Amino acid sequence: MKFMDVHHGMSGITAEQLRAAHAADAAVEAEEGVHFEQAWADPDSGTVYCLSEAPSREAVQRVHRRTGHPADEIHPVPLSV
Amino acid sequence: MKFMDVHHGMSGITAEQLRAAHAADAAVEAEEGVHFEQAWADPDSGTVYCLSEAPSREAVQRVHRRTGHPADEIHPVPLSV
Repeated sequence: MKFMDVHHGMSGITAEQLRAAHAADAAVEAEEGVHFEQAWADPDSGTVYCLSEAPSREAVQRVHRRTGHPADEIHPVPLSV
Repeated sequence: MKFMDVHHGMSGITAEQLRAAHAADAAVEAEEGVHFEQAWADPDSGTVYCLSEAPSREAVQRVHRRTGHPADEIHPVPLSV
């Protein structure tokens, strides 16, 4: 199932920091059965969105916790267009 | 520039309703210089995320207003991975 998770409080995040966070997630995601497909960041509001394919909300959060950036919201998004 | 907009209060949205909303946006988006690339919906929480390429936040909202579903949040997302 696909999930969209949201991180707040990331004001000023740089392209390099986004890449590093994504790379950290990518390094451990397989152990949780998760794949982070895309991520987008708004440095002004400090919001980061991550789209993943994962077995559960909890699995998404386990990856983000292991890499030091737990999500503030995790929504299953079974519908897409 | 890319934007992520968010709609709340869409509880129970169906795949058909998401496709119809996306099609309505697609029918007028060019007049505002906008292109909606992808959208994802969580029927349980009533949240819809739309990713677009657009000249401004206001242009994104003009399309959504014209098609009857203004966004609750519109974030520029200059960074992606």
